Amino acid sequence: MPPSKGYAALNATSPLAPYGFTRREPGATEIVVEILYCGVCHSDLHMARNEWGQSIYPLVPGHEIVGRVTALGSAVKKFKLGETAAIGVIIDSCRHCAPCNRGEEHFCDEGATLTYAAKDRVDGSITMGGYSNNYVVDERFAHTVPANLSPAAVAPLLCAGITTYSPLRHWNVGPGKKVGIIGLGGLGHMGLKFAHSFGAHAVQLTTSLKKKEDALKLGADEVILSTDPAAMKAHAGTFDFILDTASAPHALEPYLALLKQDGTLTMVGLPEKPPTVAPFALIGKRLSVAGSMIGGMEETQQMLDYCGHHNITSEVEVIPIQKINEAFERMLKQDVKYRFVIDMSSLK
Amino acid sequence: MPPSKGYAALNATSPLAPYGFTRREPGATEIVVEILYCGVCHSDLHMARNEWGQSIYPLVPGHEIVGRVTALGSAVKKFKLGETAAIGVIIDSCRHCAPCNRGEEHFCDEGATLTYAAKDRVDGSITMGGYSNNYVVDERFAHTVPANLSPAAVAPLLCAGITTYSPLRHWNVGPGKKVGIIGLGGLGHMGLKFAHSFGAHAVQLTTSLKKKEDALKLGADEVILSTDPAAMKAHAGTFDFILDTASAPHALEPYLALLKQDGTLTMVGLPEKPPTVAPFALIGKRLSVAGSMIGGMEETQQMLDYCGHHNITSEVEVIPIQKINEAFERMLKQDVKYRFVIDMSSLK
Repeated sequence: MPPSKGYAALNATSPLAPYGFTRREPGATEIVVEILYCGVCHSDLHMARNEWGQSIYPLVPGHEIVGRVTALGSAVKKFKLGETAAIGVIIDSCRHCAPCNRGEEHFCDEGATLTYAAKDRVDGSITMGGYSNNYVVDERFAHTVPANLSPAAVAPLLCAGITTYSPLRHWNVGPGKKVGIIGLGGLGHMGLKFAHSFGAHAVQLTTSLKKKEDALKLGADEVILSTDPAAMKAHAGTFDFILDTASAPHALEPYLALLKQDGTLTMVGLPEKPPTVAPFALIGKRLSVAGSMIGGMEETQQMLDYCGHHNITSEVEVIPIQKINEAFERMLKQDVKYRFVIDMSSLK
Repeated sequence: MPPSKGYAALNATSPLAPYGFTRREPGATEIVVEILYCGVCHSDLHMARNEWGQSIYPLVPGHEIVGRVTALGSAVKKFKLGETAAIGVIIDSCRHCAPCNRGEEHFCDEGATLTYAAKDRVDGSITMGGYSNNYVVDERFAHTVPANLSPAAVAPLLCAGITTYSPLRHWNVGPGKKVGIIGLGGLGHMGLKFAHSFGAHAVQLTTSLKKKEDALKLGADEVILSTDPAAMKAHAGTFDFILDTASAPHALEPYLALLKQDGTLTMVGLPEKPPTVAPFALIGKRLSVAGSMIGGMEETQQMLDYCGHHNITSEVEVIPIQKINEAFERMLKQDVKYRFVIDMSSLK
């Protein structure tokens, strides 16, 4: 393997800066991916700054990876040299527990291996993410990418895409269902696109009517200003499902009031301050508050294939890696439509 | 109708005291029930003291009613004079919405009528509950009672029973399932009996090992001290369903850690301080926190019939109505095994 280079945080307060390291030679079932694009997820910022208390430094973030296969182990079957490959939030798992055996590696009983800042199962090293020029991964944890999609706009599908696709599928969002999306950021805009594409009546719930035109363009059948009690009351008890992508602190009760009997609100955002759930808000209509996180390898591939068939990608702003620290600051101000993606050719 | 007498709270701070009032003559589909026993639910205390801010005074509590049919409207089909009848938490609903039409009157779109402190749909009066000598109710909202069961021990089934039976049925608790019950009070001990009877592996979760022997007698296959981190860790990720009956403030996260992938914790208790739900505690295994409340008329009758077939009743301490204020104080100290029931012959 040629030396790897990327951008790393050296500690919780340092900005990301150029960093050199090495990756192992690919094993028999592994591929080497030359990274073309890597999406910028809010988790990258949380992890770079150790806001979840689990970071390991130096830390190279990035788990929305699209690239080109440049080397293959002898037993690789899924990829050919030169093909496009994608890597998401997990890059390994125990591969033998019940969830792994049914293709739900994200529920691995022993814990899946994260794409960065985790202990690699093969060589014990600390995984380094996609803000870098290449990656080595077992083919099981890499995905093929439909040729008709723009690679830069595919990158965010690997986290923001599957994180919204999976719960919308799991809770059977489709024709005849009224579905709300809370938040219109990286996750929310993908949730809106999928809910619309699945044939549901898709409603964007937003605290800012400035986002109304954009939401309608992205697929919303309706937009509701969640801070308007009259508007919220008019829709009370009419939603089958709500996908909550908001990462800012927010009360759940006003949204729960929108749900029908047996409805579910599923959180995929990670607000720093956990919301309270008043039992009174749940019991009257037997409601549920759930959580969901990415998806397994099988479903992630299904999602990418679905996006190929329906021509769905993320809305992105492509940046050179030299602008990553600025992008982090803009992301904190929600100043991005709707996902930053790093053009890794800027590393050269 | 002869005059009614009962015990009422005249305001939020007054103790319950004798109170006289009148009930209407029964309509064509209504029955008059001479009340024999009425269970004492924690809601009665909350409502007597206006702790939920919705009380209407004078307030006669009581919604776990068992009695004898003493008069019948001309069109009544379900009851004969002298038969035993039971009345629970709701005594009317719109009777024409979709939930009512499918026998789920507790989800009535227009709101069901509560047994006390609610506006009666027939005559506009304020409903007076079962801490009294009689009740007038439409036969749709009264239930037949299996003859083999003790009427005093049946009374709590009308709230504590159906409140635990319904979610255990809805979430398919049965053979092959491991089910936890949080709390061993009026609700919890019924949840434990039902979970055991349904064939599940029933586990009592308790903060006090003093309750262990009782829990085992009531049907627990295991008892776990929830304050023992090692014991809780040993059971992590092994439960299919948890029924949370606790009314004291408590964190949900330690219990959520017990659930398997796609598991659900359902709250039926009503802690005054709503618990927080950390998204991180839900997303890793796609868990749900839900709420449930009593059941419809059809399911309530099914529950009573099931109890008849399986000889299930509540554990009760029978008191004369003159001891109701003392019983409230003891209930606050959890000094009851496991439900007070008022013997209404003490009213005479």
